[in-house]
Amino acid sequence: MPKTIAIVGKYFAVGIDESLTEVADFLQVRGHKVVFEAETAQNIALKGFEAMTPEQIGEQADAAIIVGGDGTMLGIARHLAPYNVPLIGINQGRLGFMTDISLERMLPVLAEMLDGNAESERRTLLQGVVKRDDVVIFSALAFNDIVVSRGGTSGMAELRVDVDGRFMYNQRSDGLIVSTPTGSTAYALSAGGPLLHPSLTGILLVPIAPHALSNRPIVVPDTSEIVIEIVNGREINVNFDMQSLTSLQVGDRIVIQRSEHTITFLHPSGWSYYETLRQKLHWNEYPSADGHLR
Amino acid sequence: MPKTIAIVGKYFAVGIDESLTEVADFLQVRGHKVVFEAETAQNIALKGFEAMTPEQIGEQADAAIIVGGDGTMLGIARHLAPYNVPLIGINQGRLGFMTDISLERMLPVLAEMLDGNAESERRTLLQGVVKRDDVVIFSALAFNDIVVSRGGTSGMAELRVDVDGRFMYNQRSDGLIVSTPTGSTAYALSAGGPLLHPSLTGILLVPIAPHALSNRPIVVPDTSEIVIEIVNGREINVNFDMQSLTSLQVGDRIVIQRSEHTITFLHPSGWSYYETLRQKLHWNEYPSADGHLR
Amino acid sequence: MPKTIAIVGKYFAVGIDESLTEVADFLQVRGHKVVFEAETAQNIALKGFEAMTPEQIGEQADAAIIVGGDGTMLGIARHLAPYNVPLIGINQGRLGFMTDISLERMLPVLAEMLDGNAESERRTLLQGVVKRDDVVIFSALAFNDIVVSRGGTSGMAELRVDVDGRFMYNQRSDGLIVSTPTGSTAYALSAGGPLLHPSLTGILLVPIAPHALSNRPIVVPDTSEIVIEIVNGREINVNFDMQSLTSLQVGDRIVIQRSEHTITFLHPSGWSYYETLRQKLHWNEYPSADGHLR
Amino acid sequence: MPKTIAIVGKYFAVGIDESLTEVADFLQVRGHKVVFEAETAQNIALKGFEAMTPEQIGEQADAAIIVGGDGTMLGIARHLAPYNVPLIGINQGRLGFMTDISLERMLPVLAEMLDGNAESERRTLLQGVVKRDDVVIFSALAFNDIVVSRGGTSGMAELRVDVDGRFMYNQRSDGLIVSTPTGSTAYALSAGGPLLHPSLTGILLVPIAPHALSNRPIVVPDTSEIVIEIVNGREINVNFDMQSLTSLQVGDRIVIQRSEHTITFLHPSGWSYYETLRQKLHWNEYPSADGHLR
Repeated sequence: MPKTIAIVGKYFAVGIDESLTEVADFLQVRGHKVVFEAETAQNIALKGFEAMTPEQIGEQADAAIIVGGDGTMLGIARHLAPYNVPLIGINQGRLGFMTDISLERMLPVLAEMLDGNAESERRTLLQGVVKRDDVVIFSALAFNDIVVSRGGTSGMAELRVDVDGRFMYNQRSDGLIVSTPTGSTAYALSAGGPLLHPSLTGILLVPIAPHALSNRPIVVPDTSEIVIEIVNGREINVNFDMQSLTSLQVGDRIVIQRSEHTITFLHPSGWSYYETLRQKLHWNEYPSADGHLR
Repeated sequence: MPKTIAIVGKYFAVGIDESLTEVADFLQVRGHKVVFEAETAQNIALKGFEAMTPEQIGEQADAAIIVGGDGTMLGIARHLAPYNVPLIGINQGRLGFMTDISLERMLPVLAEMLDGNAESERRTLLQGVVKRDDVVIFSALAFNDIVVSRGGTSGMAELRVDVDGRFMYNQRSDGLIVSTPTGSTAYALSAGGPLLHPSLTGILLVPIAPHALSNRPIVVPDTSEIVIEIVNGREINVNFDMQSLTSLQVGDRIVIQRSEHTITFLHPSGWSYYETLRQKLHWNEYPSADGHLR
Repeated sequence: MPKTIAIVGKYFAVGIDESLTEVADFLQVRGHKVVFEAETAQNIALKGFEAMTPEQIGEQADAAIIVGGDGTMLGIARHLAPYNVPLIGINQGRLGFMTDISLERMLPVLAEMLDGNAESERRTLLQGVVKRDDVVIFSALAFNDIVVSRGGTSGMAELRVDVDGRFMYNQRSDGLIVSTPTGSTAYALSAGGPLLHPSLTGILLVPIAPHALSNRPIVVPDTSEIVIEIVNGREINVNFDMQSLTSLQVGDRIVIQRSEHTITFLHPSGWSYYETLRQKLHWNEYPSADGHLR
Repeated sequence: MPKTIAIVGKYFAVGIDESLTEVADFLQVRGHKVVFEAETAQNIALKGFEAMTPEQIGEQADAAIIVGGDGTMLGIARHLAPYNVPLIGINQGRLGFMTDISLERMLPVLAEMLDGNAESERRTLLQGVVKRDDVVIFSALAFNDIVVSRGGTSGMAELRVDVDGRFMYNQRSDGLIVSTPTGSTAYALSAGGPLLHPSLTGILLVPIAPHALSNRPIVVPDTSEIVIEIVNGREINVNFDMQSLTSLQVGDRIVIQRSEHTITFLHPSGWSYYETLRQKLHWNEYPSADGHLR
């Protein structure tokens, strides 16, 4: 049973003060030490709880409960990745891919989980390094994806892709998404990529609006080293989880590998990834159901 | 104002007897002559109303009200096409693409429409003719689509497509869908085709699982003559609206043109095709909305 | 027979000086008056020919011969659109969608065409107007497409689309391509759009990486007025044929309609749009042909 | 160094007698014992070589050389799977995904490879079992894919899919492709699936023309047990590598797992999977390259 539990609320904690207090009280009554992530603590002005930076949480907490949306989870997960603190996700609004416990049922579900009826799931991250003239100029982790794309005023990006030292292609497109299985339900999905089960040991490459019609999404083993070189294009940039950004020049190379860190999610037992997919993606609903006699 | 109005119910009229009676009474009170399509009449055993074949309806009715789903509409529309009787669609269950008035609100909506507050919309059909050694062996209309496809035990179909006497391609695939704008929300959509606004004067060709990755859907003017020749493949067949079927041989040619007939729908005024699309296709819902920070 | 013929070369006329001279001499011998587009004239320093601005060509030439690639054609066509000068396209390198005569065979083909054995084809353009607080702040023509898209550092664009005064959807995506049939083989194709035959009277809307998986390409009649309003997003911009650009703010509206102008292409007789597609898109080549027994 | 080498020619060995003789002589001179697959032997009527069934080859040969296309490889590979004989593929015509040595260069390449300069690559197969009322009625291996699909005269298939005992979805479609990484370049690719690197430990599920637009291809770990149950539809059948076929009834279940067997390919050293993809899929060719100024 986790002794110290950290609580992390969404950005500015809009509309969830009460829920956070409720969770904190519930945990304290059960005998856990409760701490709050510093920004969350500031936003809700709760007294009597210690505030911690993500780093302190990483070092001292035995688990973290995230209340908000998948974006909240995405933000904190990368910070906590080096510490491997198990994460529990509670969604404030609509069901999330990573925040799979609803606000309404959170207390009984947490009770069950803290009693040990939980399933643990390990997710991979990507480590991306940007090199200019063989000097590292930027480095970051991504939990969803690393995206190299053209700027808004540029016609296209031309990218050379090598995998494990073998030339894959020169791709002309709006950009290239390199995604974890977790990220396969995010930007990669919009760009036409497949879904990858979270436990698949693969990395997904999805071209964005590629010129060559046969440039399909491709999945490579997650032991691969992927190198993307900027061959041509103005205002090319690279994003990590659609947040931290770096501008690139022709000749820059982005080297991407699976991170040595992983993220551990705790789910209620009986949790099913496919159920989440089914609900989020409206599977089992058919636009042409009765109408078109198929 | 339409004098004689025909009522057509869905297959076996399951669960809609009451609604049909309600509509019939409502129309009679308003002074219309009400007739029932023969099969529908048989299924609900209503007394005091004349029963008519589709042909008789076509010749004698000034409008027809269809109660059921898009499939019901599809079935009767092709029969009535030569007579150009305006059609009103009431959906029994979920909103349809063609049955756009809900059972709950049907009486006030019909009242409005019969008072003249209706929008009329004209839809095209396809005429397909199958030729073997230049002899016509089959001919039918399609309101949604004409589909040439391989049998279940055959590896693929190879089809030669000519448009207006110009060679388009030899296509290896599971088959080819030739669709009206109306059919663009049916099978063609599942196979990756675009949506065509009902008033677009175009015919849509959508290959099903084509071998050549660049074999994209293509829209040609609806004045085009499309000829599909069976080049190779066993058990190839052609479907008209997924119903009437003919088996084909190598060398057979299917000649497809816009039919001289059209179908007229009556919609409540203010009706919007885009609203139907939005509802049926769950536009404005975003799987990755808050979660992935895009 | 066209009396005055203008010659337009590609950007800086790299590597085509000789060909331009050859065409000019050929035309002069045949009794045509030959003029050169001003920039082209400057680049090749030919003597004895009049240089004209695109406007002058529009007003005075009876036909124009474009030597280069589709990009050259795209650039000059918009300038000449108001004057309806027929255009003949000669491709320097690989076959183009719009430059369909090869450099090698240009003289005999031109001879045939100038003798009257040519097919004329009319193509539509789009007129786009950007309004801020109901004031027009920008206006331009597009021959391929008008593209509204997010900037490189922005997560997404949220766009409200209305067609003919009816709400279509609020779309979250990387952007939206509004394309002519001509543009359907350009950016729209990369983003997953269908091909539209050049004579189809339609306008194509293709979302770029839309969040909602059911946001499919849609074709509307080319009499439609399409209004795109910026609902959300930073650094949104609008491109006309990937060239002229304007930055947009939330609330800005882009109003798009078919232009009153058209562009006339002259093709060798027997020319086939489908043959160009077949060659450019590698139709009739099958990656899995013999290998996978389909 | 392999002592006994089997030679397998394509179906009826059309046009490759000479090449087969050449390979046989070459191997014999180098001191290998050469045997011929029985059908191949019959077709070329070579004297002085032993003929063997696939089973005998499996038991006695140290390597097999396949001359033909990917289809030839596909056919023999499944037979040899239980014996794990390394396979070398020589393509008669166009480069294959699995037959990656050209007929022209085969002797020097084979010399190199038999001297030990070869790369070995292991590929997975699928084992499929059909159960009716819990009794196994059919069982087969697939190297590319196992496909459950509707018959030509049936409107659609409704399939319930469970993975590792968890319900995935009820899918209405033309069918479902369950594919190995090897099969990802075959039927699955035509139906819109992604490419999977051959060493990825995943199984690919690709729906064929699904009704629900969000039914995307999904990749699951290759330790998964996939159960497909026929919920609805007439004339549903299941194919293994598009060859052996069984008709199914409502209620039948197909249970699919990674086979315990694997297939070993030998490639010339320096071989690159990406180079094959690049050539077969025309990567690095851009339809809109110069023309559309992107």
